[in-house]
Amino acid sequence: MKPVIVVHGGAGRIFKEREQGSRDGVVRAALRGYGILKQGGSALDAVEEAVRSMEDDPHFNAGCGSLLNEKGEVEMDAIIMDGKNLDSGAVSAVKCIANPIKLARLVMEKTKHMLLTDHGAHLFAQAMGIPETPGEKLITERSWERWKKNLEGLQFQDYLGTVGAVAIDSEGNVACATSTGGLSNKLVGRVGDTACIGSGGYADNHSGASSTTGHGESIMKVVLARLILYHMEQGMSPEMAADTALDYMKTRVGGLGGVVVINSSGEWAARFSTKQMSWATVKDGQLHYGIYAGERHTKSVDEALASESGGF
Amino acid sequence: MKPVIVVHGGAGRIFKEREQGSRDGVVRAALRGYGILKQGGSALDAVEEAVRSMEDDPHFNAGCGSLLNEKGEVEMDAIIMDGKNLDSGAVSAVKCIANPIKLARLVMEKTKHMLLTDHGAHLFAQAMGIPETPGEKLITERSWERWKKNLEGLQFQDYLGTVGAVAIDSEGNVACATSTGGLSNKLVGRVGDTACIGSGGYADNHSGASSTTGHGESIMKVVLARLILYHMEQGMSPEMAADTALDYMKTRVGGLGGVVVINSSGEWAARFSTKQMSWATVKDGQLHYGIYAGERHTKSVDEALASESGGF
Repeated sequence: MKPVIVVHGGAGRIFKEREQGSRDGVVRAALRGYGILKQGGSALDAVEEAVRSMEDDPHFNAGCGSLLNEKGEVEMDAIIMDGKNLDSGAVSAVKCIANPIKLARLVMEKTKHMLLTDHGAHLFAQAMGIPETPGEKLITERSWERWKKNLEGLQFQDYLGTVGAVAIDSEGNVACATSTGGLSNKLVGRVGDTACIGSGGYADNHSGASSTTGHGESIMKVVLARLILYHMEQGMSPEMAADTALDYMKTRVGGLGGVVVINSSGEWAARFSTKQMSWATVKDGQLHYGIYAGERHTKSVDEALASESGGF
Repeated sequence: MKPVIVVHGGAGRIFKEREQGSRDGVVRAALRGYGILKQGGSALDAVEEAVRSMEDDPHFNAGCGSLLNEKGEVEMDAIIMDGKNLDSGAVSAVKCIANPIKLARLVMEKTKHMLLTDHGAHLFAQAMGIPETPGEKLITERSWERWKKNLEGLQFQDYLGTVGAVAIDSEGNVACATSTGGLSNKLVGRVGDTACIGSGGYADNHSGASSTTGHGESIMKVVLARLILYHMEQGMSPEMAADTALDYMKTRVGGLGGVVVINSSGEWAARFSTKQMSWATVKDGQLHYGIYAGERHTKSVDEALASESGGF
């Protein structure tokens, strides 16, 4: 099996001045994940690395750069899932750690559980020796300004920038990972789709993997990631499954969003019903990426890696 | 549409001396829910009342009677869902409240969110004026003994007693509700299937509703409640959908559990792959209930209500 990775940097509205940073961020994440796959690494390691790369990038609403809750704090959700055995790990409403996706992976591998929340997740992070990151280090000027404007009653389209990835490795295993700071000015303790298996992500070697972004509550209502895999189980391509599910979410509950999808043959899709979604994929040594509907740039991986080492 | 309610008091192993209490508890819950439906009340009100009744009953692992986490505390999860618009409310890792299902309903109706966790759920409960119940008032001798024996290394089958209900009302609306204290001696902050939409419950007027119980992590891996509704969407009866999904959970991830299911025509099923599950249903003025596979007692509702007022 030829390895493939597809990443997204969130569906929603991306301001003009942030477009280049978003493109660079998803390209970098896809290249890093692909690097792992090319060396024979697992889909699980690849999606974790891609998401970690975007958590560390302040352009995205995950890790550093997360949007703030009503009290001006960062509270994050993340999930990772292994398509081989349907094993998964997730965390919800976690604070003061740089990489929630790494904590989610530890929940999967070091506990009998699948989801740890808030205070318990904090205790678990301590027990695992994960260093505490002061909350203010995760806050960017952009997230703080958005929070303040929302407090003043200005409404933004707030579900921007959840990050995620799906991959298939040389052994044919699929995996997904998703990470988010959630909605700006959300209630303390609000958990969105990302931490909920089937909503924020789902992976099953028998059909494929999906990672979602968009209006979390709508995604939860239709259990979007699992819905897409059902459509693929019924014979749809990743693109048709994604479009069918996104269309259903729009008509049934009025929600917009985006998804990256891969099937067990390595076919992929990056689709969205929002105005924009930053995405990137690498397959057969070719990088593709875009932000707007219909936008698709293509480069060889070698060329992209050369410009990465120069440009990033 | 003739109203129907189906409730469960948890799948697992029910000790001989607790069988009668479990039977009485599910019968009482089903009768209370049905009372609401008969008066023209909504499926949502009926499942909330049925689950509240079992949360208040110390025979079940929900509300008072919840199993304890590793620190000997009660931490509860609950979800409610409205099949009309796919709206849902849930809470995870909540402490010191008598009825998590009521808090889940408030999340659905009073916020823009669908899931509140731990500290944030506590703040929300305070803001809603819900009285605080001292944690020790939710602890029973049984839950404490089980916790202590587990600490000493004795292994119980610990996923006993999650409660749930599904119903269809005279307008053809379906709803589900599920509530649990989770696994005994779980890590602090462990959230199971109950709080995760699609896993612990799912309701959609187009197909039906389902509430699940059993090994939470296995239920999450297969997103069990949503899976059952997919099978019904493909034309299966509630019974066949339940059995197919429970069989898949057993063969794919080695998990046991139980479900109550209703479809949009009012056909119902109460099925389990564990040794026992306490369940009760009321349809067409007839009460049915049981605990063991193949066990099914039938009474008229009038007769059951007469013995309830005497016997309970």
